Amino acid sequence: MKNLGYYNGKTGLIEQICIPMTDRAFYFGDGVYDAVMCRNNIPYLLNEHIDRFYKNCKTLSIHIPMPKNELYELIYSLVKEVDAEEKFVYFHVSRGSGIRSHTFDGEKGNLCITVIPQTIGDISVKMKTALMKDIRYKLCNIKTLNLLPSVLAAQYAKELGCDETIFYRNDFVTEGSHCNVSIIKDDKLITAPADCYILPGVARAHLIDEAKKAGIDVEERRYGLTELFSADEIIITSSSKIARGVESIDGKKVGEKNPKLLSYLQDRLYDDYINATSVNS
Amino acid sequence: MKNLGYYNGKTGLIEQICIPMTDRAFYFGDGVYDAVMCRNNIPYLLNEHIDRFYKNCKTLSIHIPMPKNELYELIYSLVKEVDAEEKFVYFHVSRGSGIRSHTFDGEKGNLCITVIPQTIGDISVKMKTALMKDIRYKLCNIKTLNLLPSVLAAQYAKELGCDETIFYRNDFVTEGSHCNVSIIKDDKLITAPADCYILPGVARAHLIDEAKKAGIDVEERRYGLTELFSADEIIITSSSKIARGVESIDGKKVGEKNPKLLSYLQDRLYDDYINATSVNS
Repeated sequence: MKNLGYYNGKTGLIEQICIPMTDRAFYFGDGVYDAVMCRNNIPYLLNEHIDRFYKNCKTLSIHIPMPKNELYELIYSLVKEVDAEEKFVYFHVSRGSGIRSHTFDGEKGNLCITVIPQTIGDISVKMKTALMKDIRYKLCNIKTLNLLPSVLAAQYAKELGCDETIFYRNDFVTEGSHCNVSIIKDDKLITAPADCYILPGVARAHLIDEAKKAGIDVEERRYGLTELFSADEIIITSSSKIARGVESIDGKKVGEKNPKLLSYLQDRLYDDYINATSVNS
Repeated sequence: MKNLGYYNGKTGLIEQICIPMTDRAFYFGDGVYDAVMCRNNIPYLLNEHIDRFYKNCKTLSIHIPMPKNELYELIYSLVKEVDAEEKFVYFHVSRGSGIRSHTFDGEKGNLCITVIPQTIGDISVKMKTALMKDIRYKLCNIKTLNLLPSVLAAQYAKELGCDETIFYRNDFVTEGSHCNVSIIKDDKLITAPADCYILPGVARAHLIDEAKKAGIDVEERRYGLTELFSADEIIITSSSKIARGVESIDGKKVGEKNPKLLSYLQDRLYDDYINATSVNS
C-alpha cells in the first residue's frame, strides 16, 4: 500500500479512513502523540518512544486502549503493509469519545496510527531557519495534539523559504517548531534544559549521550539569542531528521566554525539509526 | 431529533457522523470555533458570534467554506431539526484536510456544527470555583481548538466538586476555563483587559455595556488574587451561562457584599436573552 491508516482496529488508506465526530481530539486536541522513523520495517527506537507515549498519557490521565507490548507488536505489523524502505510512523491516542464536554469520565482512549513513506534525507544539508517568539503553553514537555502554535511557526518558516523556525522566550532559546535546538561552543555542547518549555526529544537525549561518550562537556542550561548567533555550530535534532546543522537564522549566516565536531556528532546518531535498522541487526 | 451534527454538508445524529481522518483538527487542533445559545429556534446574538468567528479565522488564515450570510442561514435551518426549547449551537472550522503536515497551502476549511438541547439554568445559583495557575499560550484571545489546558482545568474543578476553575497568571486573574471573570468593588465593575491572555467574550462585552448604561464605572485592567478574594461580588460570564455569581473559591466564601448590583447586572443580561429569543421579538 502507498500509506496506511489505523483507527481503533480499522485499517485502510489514510485518505479513506473515517473517525467518529465524537472523538475528543477533534474538539479539544485532547490527546497525546509520538512518532518514529522506520527502515527495513524496523521502527527505530520504538521502545523509547512507546515509553514516553505511555508516560505522557499517564500524566494527562489518558487511557491507551492496550498495553505497551501490544502497541509495539501492532506497529511492527502495520509498517509491513506500506511499500517503502524508509517510513514515518505516527501514533496518537485521544481521551475518548462523547458529546462535546470539557470534563471527562476516564473513558478508554481512541488509538490512531499512520504510516507513510518518508526518508531521513541527506543529513549533511544544513537548514535555513527563522526566529519566532515562543507563545506556547507551559506543557511543551508533553507531545499533545495542541499544536497550533507549531503549525503557525512551521508555516512562517515555509513562507520565508526556510526549513524550520527556532522559538525564543524572553531572551532564551527553547526549541524549534518540531525539533530540539542545541549549540556547540568552544568544544562544548549546550542545550536548553528539559523543563516545561521544551520537549525532551529522544534524538536530543541520544545527542547528549554521544557527546558525553566522546568526552565532550555537556551543559543543559538556558542560552540566549546572543549565544545562538555566536555559536560555533547549531544542531537541530528530531526523530524524523536525526541531526542537522543550521546555516542561517533570518538570513544571517551562523555556525560553520566547528564542522568537524558537528559532523562527528551527526555521524554517531546517523550510524546508530542505520545499524539499528539494518536487516541483520 | 435529539441532537444534530453537521459536517461539510452531511447531517445526522452527532454519534453517527463520521469525519475523514485527514481533518487537521484531528492532528493539530488546527481550527477555530464559536458557540451560541438558542431559544425558540432563535440563535442568540448569532451575528456577533459569526463576526468573531470570521475575524478569528482570518487572523489564522483559515478559510471558512461559505460567506457569513450562508453560515447564518445554515445555523438557522439546523437548529429547527432538534426538539428542545433551549439549545446550544457549536460550530468550528478546521484548516482543511491532508496527510499530516504542519505546513499548509491555503486549503478550504472543513465546517462542523453541532446542536444539542441545553439550558441556561438558574442564573441565581452561585458557582463554586477552584483556582489554578494559567499555563496557557498567548493566543487566548482566539477561540481555537487547542483546548487541552481548559479541559484539564474544567476536570480539576469537577473533581473538587466545583463548577468552574479561575485561572491566574503570576498574580493577576485572567479568566475561567470557559468563561470570563469580572469583579464588583465599591460599585465599580473591574474586568481583565482584552489582551492575548483572555477571550473577549460576547457576554463580557454585554456586561460592560450594561454597566456603562447604568452609570457604573468600568475598569478594564489587570487585577490580582487579593482583589479577587476581597471583591464585593465576582461575576462569571459566558454565552452558555449568561452571568452567574460566585460563592466560593477553593472552599473560601467570597463576595456576597453587593447582591443588589450583581443581580441588577445579571437581570439586564438575562432579560436581553429572553427578549431577543421571544417568538414575537
